[in-house]
Amino acid sequence: MRYFEDFQVGDKIVTRGRTITEADIVMFSAFSGDWHPLHTDIEYATKGPFKERIAHGFLVLSVASGLLPLSEMAIIAFYGMDRVRFIAPVKLLDTIHVEFETMEKQDRDERGGVITFQQTVKNQRGEDVVVGMMRSFIAKRG
Amino acid sequence: MRYFEDFQVGDKIVTRGRTITEADIVMFSAFSGDWHPLHTDIEYATKGPFKERIAHGFLVLSVASGLLPLSEMAIIAFYGMDRVRFIAPVKLLDTIHVEFETMEKQDRDERGGVITFQQTVKNQRGEDVVVGMMRSFIAKRG
Amino acid sequence: MRYFEDFQVGDKIVTRGRTITEADIVMFSAFSGDWHPLHTDIEYATKGPFKERIAHGFLVLSVASGLLPLSEMAIIAFYGMDRVRFIAPVKLLDTIHVEFETMEKQDRDERGGVITFQQTVKNQRGEDVVVGMMRSFIAKRG
Amino acid sequence: MRYFEDFQVGDKIVTRGRTITEADIVMFSAFSGDWHPLHTDIEYATKGPFKERIAHGFLVLSVASGLLPLSEMAIIAFYGMDRVRFIAPVKLLDTIHVEFETMEKQDRDERGGVITFQQTVKNQRGEDVVVGMMRSFIAKRG
Amino acid sequence: MRYFEDFQVGDKIVTRGRTITEADIVMFSAFSGDWHPLHTDIEYATKGPFKERIAHGFLVLSVASGLLPLSEMAIIAFYGMDRVRFIAPVKLLDTIHVEFETMEKQDRDERGGVITFQQTVKNQRGEDVVVGMMRSFIAKRG
Amino acid sequence: MRYFEDFQVGDKIVTRGRTITEADIVMFSAFSGDWHPLHTDIEYATKGPFKERIAHGFLVLSVASGLLPLSEMAIIAFYGMDRVRFIAPVKLLDTIHVEFETMEKQDRDERGGVITFQQTVKNQRGEDVVVGMMRSFIAKRG
Repeated sequence: MRYFEDFQVGDKIVTRGRTITEADIVMFSAFSGDWHPLHTDIEYATKGPFKERIAHGFLVLSVASGLLPLSEMAIIAFYGMDRVRFIAPVKLLDTIHVEFETMEKQDRDERGGVITFQQTVKNQRGEDVVVGMMRSFIAKRG
Repeated sequence: MRYFEDFQVGDKIVTRGRTITEADIVMFSAFSGDWHPLHTDIEYATKGPFKERIAHGFLVLSVASGLLPLSEMAIIAFYGMDRVRFIAPVKLLDTIHVEFETMEKQDRDERGGVITFQQTVKNQRGEDVVVGMMRSFIAKRG
Repeated sequence: MRYFEDFQVGDKIVTRGRTITEADIVMFSAFSGDWHPLHTDIEYATKGPFKERIAHGFLVLSVASGLLPLSEMAIIAFYGMDRVRFIAPVKLLDTIHVEFETMEKQDRDERGGVITFQQTVKNQRGEDVVVGMMRSFIAKRG
Repeated sequence: MRYFEDFQVGDKIVTRGRTITEADIVMFSAFSGDWHPLHTDIEYATKGPFKERIAHGFLVLSVASGLLPLSEMAIIAFYGMDRVRFIAPVKLLDTIHVEFETMEKQDRDERGGVITFQQTVKNQRGEDVVVGMMRSFIAKRG
Repeated sequence: MRYFEDFQVGDKIVTRGRTITEADIVMFSAFSGDWHPLHTDIEYATKGPFKERIAHGFLVLSVASGLLPLSEMAIIAFYGMDRVRFIAPVKLLDTIHVEFETMEKQDRDERGGVITFQQTVKNQRGEDVVVGMMRSFIAKRG
Repeated sequence: MRYFEDFQVGDKIVTRGRTITEADIVMFSAFSGDWHPLHTDIEYATKGPFKERIAHGFLVLSVASGLLPLSEMAIIAFYGMDRVRFIAPVKLLDTIHVEFETMEKQDRDERGGVITFQQTVKNQRGEDVVVGMMRSFIAKRG
């Protein structure tokens, strides 16, 4: 486990990639209940601005959360998000990865503190897809 | 479809509820790849701050997105999120719903504009679970 | 919620569409346990009458049920179905929608009554795919 | 494979059982898109006529289709259903099985014919849950 | 149910086929948590030895287990596996089936005995994909 | 990525845990198609040797594969398994983890070599659940 003390401002992580498939979009539509025709109706989507079905914003953020090594972080709770911006669509068979940088540490109490990470989801061409600031409450070692 | 012109500042929506089950947490862990033991290891979670497994933050936001009548909105793209805060955990068999208010309309061009919604996810006791500002680019009727 | 009193004979609904994907057929085979090679074995299916894998009949009816705004209807129970006929196959990347008409109302007691709906599932070419009469027991407002 | 010639009026099949779990109801809600609160909102369902969440009608029919040995039948197409009646609810941890009887054979042409089966889904107490007549177009051996 | 007494050394079974799809690989990655880029990153996989994404070894073994008529065998427990060898990759839209032969019967006690089966998973070109010896503890009829 | 050169005989890994839920058993039954009543029929299972539904052997091995840090290993192919033995059942809400030891390295050619790992899946009481030898072909660094 990585504790509050183990993070340094400026630390960077670059994750492996995951290809977003038609199956991912169907499964996320099903799980979330968001069947907007932009994602799930090929007739509608091909007439729209992207000319094909695209992934949901929360699909991209959910997949990004699983690419990060969160299981190795002593997270107590997800504190929040700020300035999340969806910059480019994720299309079928795009492959995304995450770049993650420790931006700020706020010591709170003997239990832990809040760390702010800048998260950038990128596609296989190196283009930014989603950017945002994620903040988690992370335990101290003791 | 509801277009940019059809939204008024102050409009409010209250959605139906959805009970969050053990199956939802397993399915979301699987889909996202985030198997943090807070969500998926009953031995670890019962020793932690919440004394039991809790839902992922993005599970709650993803389910919230599906409770909203997004399919009836002429969304062109999800613009972004600001000041998202996770206030209380969602535990097994909690039932969540969403309260959603139109806060601001920014006319952009002949295609559409950006609408800012305040989203509050609440549980069956009426407690706030997640709050945040969601902004979408929504088409004009023409 | 729409109650028994809110339905009028002759009311019609046309739903949004949903594209049926390979992932849908795999997921439905898995859920139902019906792995008939017409649906799941590309070698077998390409030699059969449809020359490719087709969707299960209950897949189509299950998806149709989710396209309808059932969550807004004060359904007490699904009463039954009559004269359901499968007219044309649903193939990969066909997009289906539902046309739904209120045909008959039978007042039963102070709790509610049985309403008969004619349901037609159509594909992206406007061809009928499945037709049938669905009957639900729907609560009265009081 | 069992062909048209291999079915005799009066043949009966009794299948193994399958327990319907909370996970099944969540997965079917997700797949179908039917999140009616009778099935998915424990607060709403406990105040309703069944006092708890119940399975969808099409969940029961879909599971029934997978309990039958359809993969061993030379089905060309699902012809239709008549007089399907939902008699009793399926609740969490009920175990259902299917009793299936060949009722009628209609020879059509050199390719095959339509066979009518009476299907009864029963629960672990032997109570009828759903009954109906299913008709399939089944190939001849040649 | 087939009991210990019902198996004879030399009995052979050849199962129906199942096509392995992109959806299967995504679903198995999700369920197992094994997102190795050989299976899930099209950019990585196309540069690797197989030039495309391939199925997981345990995906193939799991699907093989479901192709076998295990539900009709009076299995008490899965005893073990020996000399399992992965001989050829399973690629998207390959169709696999299983050939299964009873090799040895070991009577243990009045409850049952251990039967050794040789299992060969083959693809649509008749090539061996996985071979191995599976041993199960199977009940006697009494 | 960890390459052939990076593994030393005697290296050990102990993974995080994952709780096996009813949802996991339903999902694996669905994916694999193995609905043996030991796993999926509560009426049958409670009369059997374990008195309740238990997890499939391949469910346990599949979950074990995802607990291991395979994504960080430069695996070319899964070579095989030997002496896999299922020692104790995994029941609902048992939490399993994996202990994994490098046992042997066989240099093959300039591309890589075969490494033999001893894998032990344990439950929350420290009892062995499954043991076996897994062999993978792993790339050299060059």
